[in-house]
Amino acid sequence: MSIDEAIAADNLRACAARYAEIRRFSEQLSEPLSAEDCAIQSMPDVSPTRWHLAHTTWFFETFVLSQFPNHEVFNADYAYLFNSYYNTLGKQYPRSQRGLLSRPGLAEVRTWRHHVDTLVLDTLRTGAGVTEHTLNLLEVGLHHEQQHQELMLTDIKHVLSRNPLRPVYRDGSFGVGRRSESKGHLRIDEGIYWIGHDGAGFAFDNESPRHRVFLNEFELSCDLTTCGDYLQFIDEGGYQRPEFWLSVGWQTVCEQEWQAPLYWFQNDDQWYQFTLAGPRKVDPHVPVTHVSYFEAEAFARWSQSRLPTEAEWEVASQQATVDGNFVDRLLAGDSAIHPHGAVRTDASIVNMFGDVWEWTASPYVAYPGYVSPEGALGEYNGKFMCNQFVLRGGSCATSSDHVRGSYRNFFQPEARWQFTGIRLCQQEPSHA
Amino acid sequence: MSIDEAIAADNLRACAARYAEIRRFSEQLSEPLSAEDCAIQSMPDVSPTRWHLAHTTWFFETFVLSQFPNHEVFNADYAYLFNSYYNTLGKQYPRSQRGLLSRPGLAEVRTWRHHVDTLVLDTLRTGAGVTEHTLNLLEVGLHHEQQHQELMLTDIKHVLSRNPLRPVYRDGSFGVGRRSESKGHLRIDEGIYWIGHDGAGFAFDNESPRHRVFLNEFELSCDLTTCGDYLQFIDEGGYQRPEFWLSVGWQTVCEQEWQAPLYWFQNDDQWYQFTLAGPRKVDPHVPVTHVSYFEAEAFARWSQSRLPTEAEWEVASQQATVDGNFVDRLLAGDSAIHPHGAVRTDASIVNMFGDVWEWTASPYVAYPGYVSPEGALGEYNGKFMCNQFVLRGGSCATSSDHVRGSYRNFFQPEARWQFTGIRLCQQEPSHA
Amino acid sequence: MSIDEAIAADNLRACAARYAEIRRFSEQLSEPLSAEDCAIQSMPDVSPTRWHLAHTTWFFETFVLSQFPNHEVFNADYAYLFNSYYNTLGKQYPRSQRGLLSRPGLAEVRTWRHHVDTLVLDTLRTGAGVTEHTLNLLEVGLHHEQQHQELMLTDIKHVLSRNPLRPVYRDGSFGVGRRSESKGHLRIDEGIYWIGHDGAGFAFDNESPRHRVFLNEFELSCDLTTCGDYLQFIDEGGYQRPEFWLSVGWQTVCEQEWQAPLYWFQNDDQWYQFTLAGPRKVDPHVPVTHVSYFEAEAFARWSQSRLPTEAEWEVASQQATVDGNFVDRLLAGDSAIHPHGAVRTDASIVNMFGDVWEWTASPYVAYPGYVSPEGALGEYNGKFMCNQFVLRGGSCATSSDHVRGSYRNFFQPEARWQFTGIRLCQQEPSHA
Amino acid sequence: MSIDEAIAADNLRACAARYAEIRRFSEQLSEPLSAEDCAIQSMPDVSPTRWHLAHTTWFFETFVLSQFPNHEVFNADYAYLFNSYYNTLGKQYPRSQRGLLSRPGLAEVRTWRHHVDTLVLDTLRTGAGVTEHTLNLLEVGLHHEQQHQELMLTDIKHVLSRNPLRPVYRDGSFGVGRRSESKGHLRIDEGIYWIGHDGAGFAFDNESPRHRVFLNEFELSCDLTTCGDYLQFIDEGGYQRPEFWLSVGWQTVCEQEWQAPLYWFQNDDQWYQFTLAGPRKVDPHVPVTHVSYFEAEAFARWSQSRLPTEAEWEVASQQATVDGNFVDRLLAGDSAIHPHGAVRTDASIVNMFGDVWEWTASPYVAYPGYVSPEGALGEYNGKFMCNQFVLRGGSCATSSDHVRGSYRNFFQPEARWQFTGIRLCQQEPSHA
Repeated sequence: MSIDEAIAADNLRACAARYAEIRRFSEQLSEPLSAEDCAIQSMPDVSPTRWHLAHTTWFFETFVLSQFPNHEVFNADYAYLFNSYYNTLGKQYPRSQRGLLSRPGLAEVRTWRHHVDTLVLDTLRTGAGVTEHTLNLLEVGLHHEQQHQELMLTDIKHVLSRNPLRPVYRDGSFGVGRRSESKGHLRIDEGIYWIGHDGAGFAFDNESPRHRVFLNEFELSCDLTTCGDYLQFIDEGGYQRPEFWLSVGWQTVCEQEWQAPLYWFQNDDQWYQFTLAGPRKVDPHVPVTHVSYFEAEAFARWSQSRLPTEAEWEVASQQATVDGNFVDRLLAGDSAIHPHGAVRTDASIVNMFGDVWEWTASPYVAYPGYVSPEGALGEYNGKFMCNQFVLRGGSCATSSDHVRGSYRNFFQPEARWQFTGIRLCQQEPSHA
Repeated sequence: MSIDEAIAADNLRACAARYAEIRRFSEQLSEPLSAEDCAIQSMPDVSPTRWHLAHTTWFFETFVLSQFPNHEVFNADYAYLFNSYYNTLGKQYPRSQRGLLSRPGLAEVRTWRHHVDTLVLDTLRTGAGVTEHTLNLLEVGLHHEQQHQELMLTDIKHVLSRNPLRPVYRDGSFGVGRRSESKGHLRIDEGIYWIGHDGAGFAFDNESPRHRVFLNEFELSCDLTTCGDYLQFIDEGGYQRPEFWLSVGWQTVCEQEWQAPLYWFQNDDQWYQFTLAGPRKVDPHVPVTHVSYFEAEAFARWSQSRLPTEAEWEVASQQATVDGNFVDRLLAGDSAIHPHGAVRTDASIVNMFGDVWEWTASPYVAYPGYVSPEGALGEYNGKFMCNQFVLRGGSCATSSDHVRGSYRNFFQPEARWQFTGIRLCQQEPSHA
Repeated sequence: MSIDEAIAADNLRACAARYAEIRRFSEQLSEPLSAEDCAIQSMPDVSPTRWHLAHTTWFFETFVLSQFPNHEVFNADYAYLFNSYYNTLGKQYPRSQRGLLSRPGLAEVRTWRHHVDTLVLDTLRTGAGVTEHTLNLLEVGLHHEQQHQELMLTDIKHVLSRNPLRPVYRDGSFGVGRRSESKGHLRIDEGIYWIGHDGAGFAFDNESPRHRVFLNEFELSCDLTTCGDYLQFIDEGGYQRPEFWLSVGWQTVCEQEWQAPLYWFQNDDQWYQFTLAGPRKVDPHVPVTHVSYFEAEAFARWSQSRLPTEAEWEVASQQATVDGNFVDRLLAGDSAIHPHGAVRTDASIVNMFGDVWEWTASPYVAYPGYVSPEGALGEYNGKFMCNQFVLRGGSCATSSDHVRGSYRNFFQPEARWQFTGIRLCQQEPSHA
Repeated sequence: MSIDEAIAADNLRACAARYAEIRRFSEQLSEPLSAEDCAIQSMPDVSPTRWHLAHTTWFFETFVLSQFPNHEVFNADYAYLFNSYYNTLGKQYPRSQRGLLSRPGLAEVRTWRHHVDTLVLDTLRTGAGVTEHTLNLLEVGLHHEQQHQELMLTDIKHVLSRNPLRPVYRDGSFGVGRRSESKGHLRIDEGIYWIGHDGAGFAFDNESPRHRVFLNEFELSCDLTTCGDYLQFIDEGGYQRPEFWLSVGWQTVCEQEWQAPLYWFQNDDQWYQFTLAGPRKVDPHVPVTHVSYFEAEAFARWSQSRLPTEAEWEVASQQATVDGNFVDRLLAGDSAIHPHGAVRTDASIVNMFGDVWEWTASPYVAYPGYVSPEGALGEYNGKFMCNQFVLRGGSCATSSDHVRGSYRNFFQPEARWQFTGIRLCQQEPSHA
């Protein structure tokens, strides 16, 4: 039973079980790491693992436990240290300096987690004072925790990648990628479509209001772009030819001296990539990942294709199921958090969910009629609707019960440290 | 006869007349300025006046004259110095260093202008070798020249504003703003609408393809936001309260220490603004200008309203005519280049064109089916479709025959040195 | 027996004892710290504690053990990670990124330390292959270790100071400062004096050649400047009045918004300072510390005095003994590493050694005839002779057997995180 | 009669003549330049020519004319715009933004100059109210003007050098350099020497007090380092080998990608340099110039030599006369402002004066007993005594009557845009 179903069923025992399970998963993710690993901030976008463990705890203490009149805050200083960006709740310790904090240490943060978990679980056990509002906040908190679980993985990958010793997060076997035999396109007819959250189960505010869009006919690639596809782009001078790039993208390529996706490096004319299991050869048959929007867009232009809009992606996704390469398999003992592509089934379109977040051509903006919720949670999504692009479908670092067809992830166009990839849309015939 | 009509009529004599007139206007704009005024670059976004005079000349020499086999380039070094951003045509002198060039001087640049003008006019007079393609390039060049005329005004305003002597570009009377009696909204019904260039007359590539969009019912304010409206926002702590702002907007407010629109300053508790006619008191009845997208968006949120999308704006604009406060009045002897608002007529909606560019809620992206043109002109618009927002309607620094309902201007959300303003859309009733 | 005496006596057993003792002291200094504390780099000048523990170990492995033909390096990657700045020995991991390394972790670094210590001690025990050169390198290594012990304390102070929780490194009592009754000056006659190392015992290369200088008559203050003295400077607008400051000093004051020495802060109109024992009230009777050269020089100008040159300081120091408030007292169980001033004895001049490093007016340059030694150790001191000022006398974080009258410490004029203080010289009568 | 002699003789007519002559020379220097050339600031260290013309005028108006009770200031706003760094006289327009000012224009500045000159000359003609103090200030003003004349030349050289058109300031023939046949050294015995201004004629405050220094025996090269000498350093990897460089010097080489002196560039394997007469081949027989202290020091180390201290230089200079390649020759019609080296005469040491400023090993600090003068002129020299090195002897851009043996010029060790060069001192025999 997912948290959403448990909440819908008003099943407090199931809620508690799910709460415990999701919270425990955060601990499991930090298990292979030393206290020092959990302290490092390798760039401003990255947060230390320990900060994630603390911030998510602060979230439950602030939004759930503090609803109860007698709750005593564990440590009053933590509100300043672990509030991420909620101006409504007070000033925040500067984001870019999270790596300067050695205290509270990992042990202390774990104590705090345990303390908060005990209180939440006790509350759910007795049910005293628990309202629908409480459960809704709990639900947000668990989806929030899952988002940070994904960030913990992508952030620690960046941290470890900066170390010349190239440490392994967790060893594990990679499935060998297999290119499906035929690559085709899924054609969708012109028309008016509804997109956005349909009301069943949990969704973030930015997925609403559900609304109509007019779409021209389009054809979406049934497959993700592979490393092999992308190598052709590199080999044909993709990173040396400005004609494929957006102006700010080309500026970034030049300033950052990009030559390949993040984590790729060459050794004896062979391409390797740093993974959570250490350096591995680039496998041409698995989906390319750690590309920015700029790279996705340039690759599409080079391919005489384009990226889909988020509306196109969402409409097409209605023909797929939320099934694929998710972080869940870590629990199943399969530990190499990395895209592995898909074996073609009879379904026309594959890998819509899991493996890599798919860049869309859509800037992240409000849906028609969207108004930020009142209060601190109104800062969750709405204030970031500027200079970011929407990604869809989840990745190998996402939990399967966290994502859905209407889910809108968003990052700056230069961001590369997430598991981000590419699915092409066919260029309109009239312009071919 | 506009250049578009002249070209459509294949009327070379009319083309030549229009060419001469538009080119002459650039000279007129630089007349009040000294050679030193024309040399200054006061921030990276600003180009020196002399650079504008040279770059537009390079444009005609490169795109029009160089089509003719025997053309000898005036000075081979100028291609590097005055190519703005066309990678297809070779490397460019760094944009941020345009203010470091003292040569070629203003006199030399004027000689070059005269030289190129003579050749273009001779060509049009004889008609030898002139094809439809030639005329199309000429047309692009003249619209390009008009864009730079607007930039010359906004750039020199910034240059002069940085000088503690607060120099006057051109003295002139300001019409006294009059608030129209009743402020209402124009209601547009839900439906599918066509937007984009309809094919009549000139348009830039980014206005096509014409395509359908689905719009919910909306209500657009019949008036522009005035300085008086905006002063209320300031007085109620608009610049001190993060809850109104996008996250990057608030960061900008804090870092840049914004307290009011660009060019506003306080003196003895009275607000003034620097204008092209020197410092003037802020008139509460004229449209506010020199606000960023961040400020427009925050003002809208504070107003419990929102900005229109570009599709909404364009659909509504079909009820207005391209008429208003344009830079043309400079030629009519009315020299204060500044918004003056409108006297209400019987038309329901006023000031859609002229006065100030109106920020829309729409990030600048490609229309469905858009593909950049081949060749250097393909770099004109397409490669900037990232991290910018669309503005509509033209300003007091725009030429009246340059703008149209489908015209898409675009700037970064932090840009404030253009004549940019605000028109609100009513928040949807369902969320009020 | 000091290491220098042991080496001079060719007493390997004494050498080994001293080696073990000094190396152990580094461990003792890191004992109160968590693994996370030891990982943080709070500004580019600061290195993580763990890095200090590793770098000093690299120093012995590289300069001492690698002299022996059969030595096998513990980990070949560490040369890159822990070489500080010796270009002769290869490339170095960037200094400003030392805080990004979580591996090797603290436990692994301690294993390495133990491994190297065992080898060094075994070598000294058997004496096989040990030459005078070996012992000289060992001696340099131990003085080097003592320098890093001082840096470990000043660096961790900075790290902890940045944490809003204001953690305590080590609790401890502060002696209450007592202002000596009469403040006088020590007068030194005009003449030719010898300065520089006189050849007895260890000294760094930059203390040689011993050479003659001509000095005018001067009078050096018998006491250090106290916090009480410095508070007067603050109260009389010292940080608001450019007339006291060097030009780059004033620029620094404005840009960094300096209002007091580093680590000082105000609370309810009372001055506090962050210390290694946590926040404490500023005691007006103890020497002021954590002032930059800029502040020392401005304070002197405000006092109508000046700072002494290093030659003046050294000549005057011949009347003092190397005795005072050193880090040794940590081992004696007195743990508050902080200046405590001196009780006046019958000696005319007090506190020349220990308590605070004293800024001199002398830029750090080569002594006449100085030539950097050959090889990697030639990079130890000589290449830093630019844009730094000399400090003399050691501090409360220095080991008593590390410092001497000819010892030249040096830092950039803006540096404040060392235990740096002020001793004034009387302005010459002819200009008073 | 020099200004110093005229003032010493209390000869107002001679003062006036000299005033007129020196002021006129500033005008002559700006004659070949356009208004735009005079407006550009190509880097923060450079000031526009027009700013120099205005600032020197402000200096006379402020320090001389404003002593007279009835003086009416020409324009009250100019005090803010043209005060360089005198905090005593009020706030200053930011130095780094001098290139953003287009007003007052060149014509207006010239009008101001004429106005001030007329008043000064009238005052000197009538003598009313003229005291010795007046004349002393006038003298400072004229030496100040001469300093800015040199800066005008070095600044405009930098401005023009940044322009891809490589404009010529003033054409002119270069004497062909001739290497003197034998290079020798001037030996000076060990002893106590007096240095500093001896009281005859004008000197800046930083040349006093005259005082004694003890010098070891040393040998100073009789010749300047030539381009040919320096090319050997380049050819032997001088810019690729960190072992020759100070630590901050090497950092600068890497960050700035220095490969040769400023203004040098390669074309078809031949070295050229940009000069005030445009690009010219590097002549191996003329003194190298436009090297930083870092380069001078690295070259010396590579040569197994060293730079002289300023005391050594000054003592040696007592065997030379103030005679050489000065900017005076511009007035004599010989216009190529560039070092030309010297034909050996019977004098043992050549080129001590003129051609290039010679870097010394001495940081710029106060002489023993130095106290800054009271008032604004106290800011002239004293506040810059930090992180700069002393240069001696004047250059081809210096006026011959401006420089003397005790004259102390000073620049940051990375500065290269002055006419700076190298004279070596022999390494002490004991270390050879």
